[in-house]
Amino acid sequence: MSFSSPGFTLAGAGIYEPARVVTSDQLDSAHGRAPGTSARLGIETRRYASGEETSSFMAAEAARSAAADAGWELGQVDALIGACGVMEQPIPGTSPLVQRRLGLGESGIPALDVNATCLSFLPALDHAIAGMALKGWRRVLIFAADIASAALDHDDPEASAIFGDGAAAVALEAGGPSRILASRLETYGDHSDLCRLEAGGTRLRPNEDLPDFLARSRFRMEGIALFKVTARRFPPFMARLFAEAGLGPDDIGTIIPHQASAPALAHLARALGGDPKRIVDTFATLGNRIASSLPHALTMARREQRLTPGSNSLLVGSSAGVSLGGMIVRW
Amino acid sequence: MSFSSPGFTLAGAGIYEPARVVTSDQLDSAHGRAPGTSARLGIETRRYASGEETSSFMAAEAARSAAADAGWELGQVDALIGACGVMEQPIPGTSPLVQRRLGLGESGIPALDVNATCLSFLPALDHAIAGMALKGWRRVLIFAADIASAALDHDDPEASAIFGDGAAAVALEAGGPSRILASRLETYGDHSDLCRLEAGGTRLRPNEDLPDFLARSRFRMEGIALFKVTARRFPPFMARLFAEAGLGPDDIGTIIPHQASAPALAHLARALGGDPKRIVDTFATLGNRIASSLPHALTMARREQRLTPGSNSLLVGSSAGVSLGGMIVRW
Repeated sequence: MSFSSPGFTLAGAGIYEPARVVTSDQLDSAHGRAPGTSARLGIETRRYASGEETSSFMAAEAARSAAADAGWELGQVDALIGACGVMEQPIPGTSPLVQRRLGLGESGIPALDVNATCLSFLPALDHAIAGMALKGWRRVLIFAADIASAALDHDDPEASAIFGDGAAAVALEAGGPSRILASRLETYGDHSDLCRLEAGGTRLRPNEDLPDFLARSRFRMEGIALFKVTARRFPPFMARLFAEAGLGPDDIGTIIPHQASAPALAHLARALGGDPKRIVDTFATLGNRIASSLPHALTMARREQRLTPGSNSLLVGSSAGVSLGGMIVRW
Repeated sequence: MSFSSPGFTLAGAGIYEPARVVTSDQLDSAHGRAPGTSARLGIETRRYASGEETSSFMAAEAARSAAADAGWELGQVDALIGACGVMEQPIPGTSPLVQRRLGLGESGIPALDVNATCLSFLPALDHAIAGMALKGWRRVLIFAADIASAALDHDDPEASAIFGDGAAAVALEAGGPSRILASRLETYGDHSDLCRLEAGGTRLRPNEDLPDFLARSRFRMEGIALFKVTARRFPPFMARLFAEAGLGPDDIGTIIPHQASAPALAHLARALGGDPKRIVDTFATLGNRIASSLPHALTMARREQRLTPGSNSLLVGSSAGVSLGGMIVRW
């Protein structure tokens, strides 16, 4: 199933990085761990959001930056699509809160959220392109903001030290030379317990069983099992994605991955071969910023002028679910 | 902006209703209210989910029913789209959990969630149709399950007694005579506080300020203000929706509304005129089931054989956000 993509333009992109930088040494010290415990995971620093730096605040800052990069007035936007891994609050979704922060709260501009945890940006991009093809949208802002630090269990360094907070946004315009050549999401729900945050929805209720609720209000990740489940499915997944695009690994100019972990990025480099400089890697300084990682890496690639006309980029990653996701874009 | 809809078929639809029926008298009695307090809101009964009837359980039951109605094997599905108002848990989304319950957890079938609170079904339907047009999807299951009873404040009858729990799902097939003539969502984020559930995302944290978290873990609704905000925007919204479709109110055979409240349904009947029997109204016995209301009402219309070939249906409602949403479908 190939993707019948209309032409579009990546008109702008922007990020928001929380002010507070936390080094791996600081983190180890704060949680009584031996020096080097966190750095061994391949991460030197990450950003943590303050109380004022909510998901919607960070998303709005990134969205403003993307719109400015595109030269848009915010009121010209036809749709605002949220692609956060975790919402700011259950009701309403994050996108109406971002719309309000952007000063568009009386505009009527449609605001909705799309979720596939860390890979949310990919179906959000599908949705934006579809809106251009089917609904006549001309300008769409997609944002992702995540605050991993809200729910980390620092007793488990491998499921906490690798995460950071942040936001990113892209401004997409209908028409232009860029096309999605392939877009693929594969979900393997049998492994949904390997990466989970259970408290905060309809199932666990603080007013019914508070101790249980609190016990499950920390993010849990079985890192090694998750890596195995993902790595085993990765080669056939990539073969199907490349077949959809009619391309091979060597046809990719820039690889824009979800910044899952140092081993995940190393595995990607090995699996795809070629020049490892093709890979956008911000893990060491920013860590895994959940769903904001992918649009953040895309923004970096754009700023470094790596998205040259006619070249191909691969957006790729895995997420809780477990899902594997990838998109091949010709610019 | 009209909707360039590919042809599709509503191949099946299904619902799940929790076993436990709670009458308005029982509810008043349980919460020390004068008899008739809840019934005065136009609702006689509603269903409440038990602990086993989780969002993913109910959604899977509804999805099985929709697939059976369509004559599909579940493994034939190309995508599973969640359209719940509130997720079962923050990570992963509800759709991978439903995929697992459907026995598809090793299938790789893409599972993702779309959210616009009570109107989630509308952008989810957009996404499904877009997947058919752009990605070659042949068969898509959309489900919505919601458990309002998880977070109600019974001290506020108007923000609690009108809600119930439930799930619904539809099975959509690419190709066929049905088309979306118009699809519209308008969001007014300045009013996002009028209808809110704050605890359960990245902003409020049980491990930082538990009393505040607990105080905000109940659903809040300013019913009268919400009604005013929505009612004022409804006529121009409907005018834009009808203009998109090139139709008028008299061209609609069946009106399939979100079951927001008795006054909201009465307002809809007045605003659209014509025979009030056109409106699918399950409010008195089931209440407002958040995002499952719309696909539930659609399922009822299908079972009553009201979706006759060539006739037009209007799906319509409002949601937290505040959003107004509508879709006109020709069957």
